[in-house]
Amino acid sequence: MGGNVYFGPTFEDTQAAAVHKIEAQMSLPVIVPVPEDAGGGYTHEKHKENARLIYNAGQLYTLTGKEKYADFAAGMMGAYADVYPGWGIHPARKEQSPGRMFWQNLNESWWLVHVSQAYGAVRDTLSDAQKDHIEQNLLRNMANFLSVESPETFDRIHNHGTWATAAVGMTGYAIGDRDYSEKALLGLDKSGESGFLKQLDELFSPDGYYHEGPYYQRYALMPFVLFARAVSQNEPERAIFRYRDGILEKAIYAVIHQNYAGLFFPINDAIKDKSIATTELLHGVSIAYELTGDPELLSIAEAQGKFALTPEGRAVSDALKSGKSKPFSYRSMRLTDGAQGDQGALDILRASRDPDGLAVVAKNTSQGLGHGHFDKLGILIYDAGREVLRDYGAARFLNVEAKYGGHYLPENNAYAKQTVAHNALVVDSRSHFNADVKTGNKNAPEPGAFEVSDDLIITSASIDTVYAGVSLSRTVAIVKDATFPEPIIIDLVKAHAGAAHSYDLPFHYNGHPVNTNLDVQADPVSRIPLGTDNGYQYLWKVAETDIVEGLSQVTWMLDRKFYTVTTLAPDDSKVVFFQIGANDPNFNLRNEPGFMLRATADRGVVFASVFEPHGEYNPVVEYTLNSYSRVSNVTHFNDGNVDFIRVATVDGDEIGLGVAEDMAPDMAHVITVDGREKSWIGPYHLFHSKSYRSGDR
Amino acid sequence: MGGNVYFGPTFEDTQAAAVHKIEAQMSLPVIVPVPEDAGGGYTHEKHKENARLIYNAGQLYTLTGKEKYADFAAGMMGAYADVYPGWGIHPARKEQSPGRMFWQNLNESWWLVHVSQAYGAVRDTLSDAQKDHIEQNLLRNMANFLSVESPETFDRIHNHGTWATAAVGMTGYAIGDRDYSEKALLGLDKSGESGFLKQLDELFSPDGYYHEGPYYQRYALMPFVLFARAVSQNEPERAIFRYRDGILEKAIYAVIHQNYAGLFFPINDAIKDKSIATTELLHGVSIAYELTGDPELLSIAEAQGKFALTPEGRAVSDALKSGKSKPFSYRSMRLTDGAQGDQGALDILRASRDPDGLAVVAKNTSQGLGHGHFDKLGILIYDAGREVLRDYGAARFLNVEAKYGGHYLPENNAYAKQTVAHNALVVDSRSHFNADVKTGNKNAPEPGAFEVSDDLIITSASIDTVYAGVSLSRTVAIVKDATFPEPIIIDLVKAHAGAAHSYDLPFHYNGHPVNTNLDVQADPVSRIPLGTDNGYQYLWKVAETDIVEGLSQVTWMLDRKFYTVTTLAPDDSKVVFFQIGANDPNFNLRNEPGFMLRATADRGVVFASVFEPHGEYNPVVEYTLNSYSRVSNVTHFNDGNVDFIRVATVDGDEIGLGVAEDMAPDMAHVITVDGREKSWIGPYHLFHSKSYRSGDR
Repeated sequence: MGGNVYFGPTFEDTQAAAVHKIEAQMSLPVIVPVPEDAGGGYTHEKHKENARLIYNAGQLYTLTGKEKYADFAAGMMGAYADVYPGWGIHPARKEQSPGRMFWQNLNESWWLVHVSQAYGAVRDTLSDAQKDHIEQNLLRNMANFLSVESPETFDRIHNHGTWATAAVGMTGYAIGDRDYSEKALLGLDKSGESGFLKQLDELFSPDGYYHEGPYYQRYALMPFVLFARAVSQNEPERAIFRYRDGILEKAIYAVIHQNYAGLFFPINDAIKDKSIATTELLHGVSIAYELTGDPELLSIAEAQGKFALTPEGRAVSDALKSGKSKPFSYRSMRLTDGAQGDQGALDILRASRDPDGLAVVAKNTSQGLGHGHFDKLGILIYDAGREVLRDYGAARFLNVEAKYGGHYLPENNAYAKQTVAHNALVVDSRSHFNADVKTGNKNAPEPGAFEVSDDLIITSASIDTVYAGVSLSRTVAIVKDATFPEPIIIDLVKAHAGAAHSYDLPFHYNGHPVNTNLDVQADPVSRIPLGTDNGYQYLWKVAETDIVEGLSQVTWMLDRKFYTVTTLAPDDSKVVFFQIGANDPNFNLRNEPGFMLRATADRGVVFASVFEPHGEYNPVVEYTLNSYSRVSNVTHFNDGNVDFIRVATVDGDEIGLGVAEDMAPDMAHVITVDGREKSWIGPYHLFHSKSYRSGDR
Repeated sequence: MGGNVYFGPTFEDTQAAAVHKIEAQMSLPVIVPVPEDAGGGYTHEKHKENARLIYNAGQLYTLTGKEKYADFAAGMMGAYADVYPGWGIHPARKEQSPGRMFWQNLNESWWLVHVSQAYGAVRDTLSDAQKDHIEQNLLRNMANFLSVESPETFDRIHNHGTWATAAVGMTGYAIGDRDYSEKALLGLDKSGESGFLKQLDELFSPDGYYHEGPYYQRYALMPFVLFARAVSQNEPERAIFRYRDGILEKAIYAVIHQNYAGLFFPINDAIKDKSIATTELLHGVSIAYELTGDPELLSIAEAQGKFALTPEGRAVSDALKSGKSKPFSYRSMRLTDGAQGDQGALDILRASRDPDGLAVVAKNTSQGLGHGHFDKLGILIYDAGREVLRDYGAARFLNVEAKYGGHYLPENNAYAKQTVAHNALVVDSRSHFNADVKTGNKNAPEPGAFEVSDDLIITSASIDTVYAGVSLSRTVAIVKDATFPEPIIIDLVKAHAGAAHSYDLPFHYNGHPVNTNLDVQADPVSRIPLGTDNGYQYLWKVAETDIVEGLSQVTWMLDRKFYTVTTLAPDDSKVVFFQIGANDPNFNLRNEPGFMLRATADRGVVFASVFEPHGEYNPVVEYTLNSYSRVSNVTHFNDGNVDFIRVATVDGDEIGLGVAEDMAPDMAHVITVDGREKSWIGPYHLFHSKSYRSGDR
């Protein structure tokens, strides 16, 4: 352990910045505006800023012992206690669960989580009159509003409920009134049927996955870990961090694993530039480090570049400075979904431990409630630190008031959630579950085997409830073989159906098209929308062409590399190129490109694709290497319940991937491929190339 | 001097990488393919790679004294000498000036520049038979081909000519035949009417600006500095680095100043991802450092992160390690254009020394020959490390064979060079000079005064030869005043005409529109091209709307900030939003957005704009500040030869900018603005706000 020299930011930088900011404020008048604006507006941001100041002042008092910080926090809390009782429901109240200081209750909980911690920190410095004023008029008043006066939020098993219970429970500890913390832990009726413990039981899967996905997991994590720390400090006998086999620690690790190049996987409603440096995860990492002492967490802290303004944050910084950091072990993993782990799974396939290496996210999760997207069995692909096959994320400009008040835009439901906005199969141009959240919530995919070996990382999933009469399955694998200089991805999408349907498989590629086997020409003088509903109305039709001899091959360039997807599809398939942005009068959408394989078939369909990162474009030294795909053909063989995908290369080599429907690990399978028998045991098998077997490379 | 601790890459890293690469090659057979492919193809890249290996082997021999490197270089050169005499003109010969090893003569010069240096380095280790073979069959053969057999290139005052003269001259020194170097310095007839010295006289302006712009300047620089170093070593009496008042040193500094965030200004034909780490500038910086010892060059070397594999490169690295580096003094400057400095100028306006701060490039240069664009008085704006108002650069995928063989695409002439592809005024929907290069080359803008003070950085230029009967002028200024938290830009575009014309002023913004005063709706279901020629045919018409009370205000978001451009235009102007990509069947263009002010006027037009960087969008900590513009109005006053622009803010403050047509520094001017006289002396004056004068901020 130890020995790395650390030159990065330190806790002292974080603390100095907080001191600088507080000191600048201390000479200024305290401004507590009357609530007026929605998210992103002046009063909204001002109250948030004040909470951060109060919180930081409280922490600085704890960290330095200087009373001026305690006085500053007390003064600001007093100013709020002066006016809070007079505030009714916020004038810009959000549809449901409005707040008083903020347009929504959720922000009010966030505020109280921060301020209650500051109050706990400085309470001992206050006069009885100050205590009484702040506790009665601000803290109890607000805690009552968030609990007994907002039961629909407080008792809800949902991240808003977690924020509310954390705010109320932490206030209880801060003012020494256990009634609040009991209600927070066990629900308003203290039965345990709701409240924080029930949320711990139900909101995370046994692997620590949060059913709304990483964007909300990251957000939900903060009240979980902060309240848990308060429980641990005030009622250590509850052993809250060991609750449910250490579920909070698992949740913190799970959210870390769900990032690529520092940004969370943008599945479901997600703001795409949300990074692991988010404040919530500063606390998550520092508290997890206190629990585990895991040196790999220090490399995450180093990447965050900032520290929680807490003693735990200081401890993380000290450990970094003493050279204890180790690289975080990014790895392929299955995160089961659902409280019992039986509601599908998020499968993360990483070609290596390199956080910027090739990675695939297979979204075989449950719907994820109201923020879920209709993208069953969808995939995302990353490479070289970038999105290669991307997810739109949420249609929302968070906190940008001019953009629909910072709310989710109408295009979020109408486009971003729809199936066609994802790299997922669309049947009959309709979104999964007809875009009905309730139906979606009831039906999760069935995960198949997840296997990780040196040369094959592979997963499958299937679902037959997305469309009536159509069952879908997808197998996706990272394959390493010497005939390809870099790992490639094999992607097998299948639909079984008893009747004729149309099938669209979109690929939302990131980059600039440079090459294709298709005889495709973008329409030079006209653009029309690709459809009228299910999200298609937001896609400009750019070009349509027939595939060539059953094969579509498209190469694009991104940054310094090339990516080719070669897809085997039914002979009469079309390839449709599109661009996002039709029916968008208010310039709300990003104009990103994509293309889709489009087939009509009587009894189901198979799309077998190879994604191939290749080559190098170097504009600095001016050379280009391997800008052409190595894939010459993709062939699919099926024999009952066994599939075989053969990938042939331009120099006459080939690899094969066998996939069995029966996932039993000891089951033997055999299939005849061009007259030769291919046999294996277990659900998957990679048949290597001659190059690999001869050790050519 | 000294004292900075340096942890960056070192020369030893560069050398170790070269050793690693060479050693890996030394056990492999030498492959010298028969010339076949165009740029980006296999044989093209292989010959380039071989030249780099030969060059590096020669340098490593010099640096380490290990004979194995000399032997390796000699072996490869011998292999080339075996086959070169048998090669005729390249089968994929480019339109003009074909090569034999490469499709164009230019690449052949590049190859010989490298290989001749290696030969010079290892010559003493060779047997007479080896020398004879390599000199006769390779070096002299190639040098003859590039000189007497290609007089149209060799004697041309052009960067291709510089590459050819450098290759031939350096070969002359390497083999000890001064006839070659004399011809290289003075032209084939040794009269001095052509050749390297004449190129030094004519290709750079007195300020070291290269008339084709920084992209080609960077490229042209390499043969200039390498040949000059060879001249200096072999004929020190020529004092080549003092030639023309040290023009080469000026040229190196000029090219460094022409970058933003590490990337060269993409004016004229330019690949936009070309950075200061380009190999040419590694040599440029190391040679300039040897000449000057300027510690500011070391910070450029540090940003480059790599070193020339030469003793000079090692010296730069050693100086960095000893802590001598100082930040490079980026500053506002005028770089005159033309051999005599009378062909316009490139004006660089920087709000601060921060290389990532607000900057404006005013392109008031000459045409720049065949790679020039028709964008007289065009501007580019940068802020926060990003392009804010951008230039398309060249339509070309350099070295990507699948994209038109890596050549300039047809869309380069048809779109990228056209005026509408730039932030420049278009009259009657026609490009400047009717897109005729010859006419363009004959007519440069007339620069006005260029002034830099603490709160005002400003330049003007005018030209009356772009359109018959229309004279154009533009004044652009960075203004600092306390009523704006950040510097803003004021941009005054004027046309004088005796007849009715239409005027389009495009702004190619980078980002996502979030707010506007316009009642604008993008057409939801249709796109048609904006025109049929002059580049308009490549623009989809996205929306068209009337301006509101003579004012157009559009705010967009880019990364973490907001940018608003508020433009005063004639009352009946339209604003047309567009997106690049119409008439692009082969997906050759990037689909970037823009909008243009569009007016028709009888006797000229005025567009007065304010560009305002503002606010902060922070998705990590989730807040947004100042997302709305502070500009409430822009008003223009004119009195004969004097203009006044008044910018009013939302809180009732205002600033004013006075601009006189007469650029004499001591001339007094007065103009009546809403009944009040505004007077000043000299071409420009900034009238500050009340906030500024009261020291409010």
